[in-house]
Amino acid sequence: MKEIDFNCDVGESYGNFKVGNDEALMPLISSCNIACGFHGGDPLTIEKTVKLALNNNVQIGAHPSYPDLMGFGRRYIQLPIDELQAVVKYQISSLKGITESLGGKLSYVKPHGALYNSIANNEEEAIAVIEAILMLDEDLAIMGLAGSKLENTAQKKNIKFIKEGFADRNYLPNGNLAPRSEEDSVISSVEETVAQILGIVEKGKVKTAEGEIDLYVDSICIHGDNPLAIEILQEVHNLVHQQQLSIKKFTI
Amino acid sequence: MKEIDFNCDVGESYGNFKVGNDEALMPLISSCNIACGFHGGDPLTIEKTVKLALNNNVQIGAHPSYPDLMGFGRRYIQLPIDELQAVVKYQISSLKGITESLGGKLSYVKPHGALYNSIANNEEEAIAVIEAILMLDEDLAIMGLAGSKLENTAQKKNIKFIKEGFADRNYLPNGNLAPRSEEDSVISSVEETVAQILGIVEKGKVKTAEGEIDLYVDSICIHGDNPLAIEILQEVHNLVHQQQLSIKKFTI
Amino acid sequence: MKEIDFNCDVGESYGNFKVGNDEALMPLISSCNIACGFHGGDPLTIEKTVKLALNNNVQIGAHPSYPDLMGFGRRYIQLPIDELQAVVKYQISSLKGITESLGGKLSYVKPHGALYNSIANNEEEAIAVIEAILMLDEDLAIMGLAGSKLENTAQKKNIKFIKEGFADRNYLPNGNLAPRSEEDSVISSVEETVAQILGIVEKGKVKTAEGEIDLYVDSICIHGDNPLAIEILQEVHNLVHQQQLSIKKFTI
Amino acid sequence: MKEIDFNCDVGESYGNFKVGNDEALMPLISSCNIACGFHGGDPLTIEKTVKLALNNNVQIGAHPSYPDLMGFGRRYIQLPIDELQAVVKYQISSLKGITESLGGKLSYVKPHGALYNSIANNEEEAIAVIEAILMLDEDLAIMGLAGSKLENTAQKKNIKFIKEGFADRNYLPNGNLAPRSEEDSVISSVEETVAQILGIVEKGKVKTAEGEIDLYVDSICIHGDNPLAIEILQEVHNLVHQQQLSIKKFTI
Repeated sequence: MKEIDFNCDVGESYGNFKVGNDEALMPLISSCNIACGFHGGDPLTIEKTVKLALNNNVQIGAHPSYPDLMGFGRRYIQLPIDELQAVVKYQISSLKGITESLGGKLSYVKPHGALYNSIANNEEEAIAVIEAILMLDEDLAIMGLAGSKLENTAQKKNIKFIKEGFADRNYLPNGNLAPRSEEDSVISSVEETVAQILGIVEKGKVKTAEGEIDLYVDSICIHGDNPLAIEILQEVHNLVHQQQLSIKKFTI
Repeated sequence: MKEIDFNCDVGESYGNFKVGNDEALMPLISSCNIACGFHGGDPLTIEKTVKLALNNNVQIGAHPSYPDLMGFGRRYIQLPIDELQAVVKYQISSLKGITESLGGKLSYVKPHGALYNSIANNEEEAIAVIEAILMLDEDLAIMGLAGSKLENTAQKKNIKFIKEGFADRNYLPNGNLAPRSEEDSVISSVEETVAQILGIVEKGKVKTAEGEIDLYVDSICIHGDNPLAIEILQEVHNLVHQQQLSIKKFTI
Repeated sequence: MKEIDFNCDVGESYGNFKVGNDEALMPLISSCNIACGFHGGDPLTIEKTVKLALNNNVQIGAHPSYPDLMGFGRRYIQLPIDELQAVVKYQISSLKGITESLGGKLSYVKPHGALYNSIANNEEEAIAVIEAILMLDEDLAIMGLAGSKLENTAQKKNIKFIKEGFADRNYLPNGNLAPRSEEDSVISSVEETVAQILGIVEKGKVKTAEGEIDLYVDSICIHGDNPLAIEILQEVHNLVHQQQLSIKKFTI
Repeated sequence: MKEIDFNCDVGESYGNFKVGNDEALMPLISSCNIACGFHGGDPLTIEKTVKLALNNNVQIGAHPSYPDLMGFGRRYIQLPIDELQAVVKYQISSLKGITESLGGKLSYVKPHGALYNSIANNEEEAIAVIEAILMLDEDLAIMGLAGSKLENTAQKKNIKFIKEGFADRNYLPNGNLAPRSEEDSVISSVEETVAQILGIVEKGKVKTAEGEIDLYVDSICIHGDNPLAIEILQEVHNLVHQQQLSIKKFTI
């Protein structure tokens, strides 16, 4: 039976502004990416989210962002390299400290939004982020887009790379995600999403407009703000009960 | 010869907004309180300030604040206790992580501005802050107003307390600082400031409007935004060269 | 048939952080209080909310706050009086300008959250806010708690006062709202809420734990973040169709 | 005798963070660009700066920015066009309202930093900004780089364009400013700066590395954060007293 890790972006609420449904998601996933305050995630939300992860035995990753609360970290901001590194170190450190104060362990870093997309392709920024991570803790892994340039950069810089695939996003023939600006970028039915998950896990394949391509991943992301997230994950758990699938934290 | 620690608030610049003169101050002091982003201190400023402290062999403390960039942390904000703790943990963690990534060690915490004043008297907030600090690292000390209630609270909670005195502020007969709103609260001549330093270090005494009172301290604060700060510290170093005084980091 | 104005707090989303359900509420109310950026309401949200109000022929009020995005403006911040006035003027001006640029008119100001509560009782802050409003536009009204001190202050300062009552909050025998910290402060059934509305509109009375008290209002607030808000307002519209009630903008 | 307007960026302080020396500059200039809160300029600073401008009979312009306090508005942020327009309208409105509340008049808009540079070349953003300005007030002018594409765009959109030249920046042969990243971009002597001013005013010419080029301007900017700003402006006033030059607000 194939084993796979499921991750969600969590802890993105900010004060009175609520995002996602972390309490319902946490029992259904094996890893979580916790916002660090720069696109979402005020300190109290972070603290509560770490506790929730620990209570549900969910592996904890940091989810740092460009400093852009108003834009939810979805806009590219060209920071000087030293500032980018400091921004990343600040955020990861805050989450790491809070996690350890509650008896937990920070396992990995998954950059958020525009920063995720940037380091998938921009090697200079990727190296900066990787070096910042390694300065904080040499045992941290970095999670990023499976098949992207980042995979090679990570190998060069000798950091464990967690290959991520997406359950609810359509892929382009070149292995990139269809951009959100395109109509068809998000898969909106539970059935198709689960089919994509099974294709990835069982066959290492994903559909595109021009036929299947290879996709090998260590973890599958379900977007927590997808209104179908809970339903999709419950369906995944049905497959687990039917022994078609096993959910298991990726190892570092 | 009497030994004493001198500390300054540093790292309070924010992006293009420059505060203080950290480069000139650092070589003259033994401990520094580095802003953590909530009243000043963007990530790059923090990183540079930690490096500056390490290069000058200056002991590093965290300087967390209420979340109030517009008010520079000088306004009391009544946070729920769990939120106050999370806010403090977030800031200390960020500084601790960056410091350790550069090979340094975080030694203590000195709350900033309105939070400093609040925990000097408000035991509930003081306990919350102390517990937050200890959850992060049991070896951290807390720096606060010498002679304040916080001294007792720290003893009760079993955290090392660093008694702080002020070189450039007038004291009230009850041992409190004359509030900044009063005309005479800040000492504005180098001579008087140095005299106050010597009185504290050599005799454990400080002048008030109604006669001298006892004041025992582990560290003396020079406000970095005092335009005379450099001059005062240079005068202090003259006293060091004349062997009237020795500057030494407080021990924890 | 009794006429009454219904108002909601709207435009409180911030970037990707969504609050309330303005599109569903707007067609059901006669006045709206639009956030101005300091507790919620980024510029694009403000622009869209003003358009929505104009399209639904809803009267527009500004909803300024203490500067406190993380606390959603629900924490008291003691600002110097000149800063409080500037903070209020800045926010109202931004909304007024955007409203007029779209062909609309700003009619009134309803301070938000902790600022609403503060000026209900603190005459110094109330006068400061009123003077700030009148400096911007002498024709603006101020909306506040019916029966509060602010009513007298407004009369003294010669600004039109809009007396506000609450549909979904329990009242104390002295006419104040039961504080949110008390268990019973929010009315949680549609029936009771509608009964309270009818009591206020038809008889000028509201129930308290110790019997009915007088309550004369110009406008009734339905909290947009009350999950029953839409249902309550639909029930109100049923009463309108049954000619028990008429919804009408208050006049200034 | 040639007449020319001098402008400075002012009101850029933020709470305790002080930028520039507005009190000394204001008596020496004829127009000022006041920050609107998004790269600098808290509400109280704005209010005080408007008063200072009015007391010195200085013409008032709005100085809106991308939302980027940490980066002082110097980083390009790709906002969707409708958001860019809302961001600009929000900021100009806040300044316009405060200015009018103090009996003044907003005359023009000079976008700040990265937004200034973007609209000099990016016609789509330029049109968006111009339309936003005109929706607020058809009589407002826009100030921008003399000789840039924006000049044509402004003409097309029928908004008065104020051609701006720079006293203390070196020009490229193509009429653009030498980028700040280049060593030689800022002129650092008072004499050369004044010579550049005289060349522009008297001959409509400016030096470049490859010879003089034409430069016709309506207003000359002195950067307030240039440490020589006061000295340069005093030298300009000496020329005024010697009747070599006359300082006069540009007309709209």
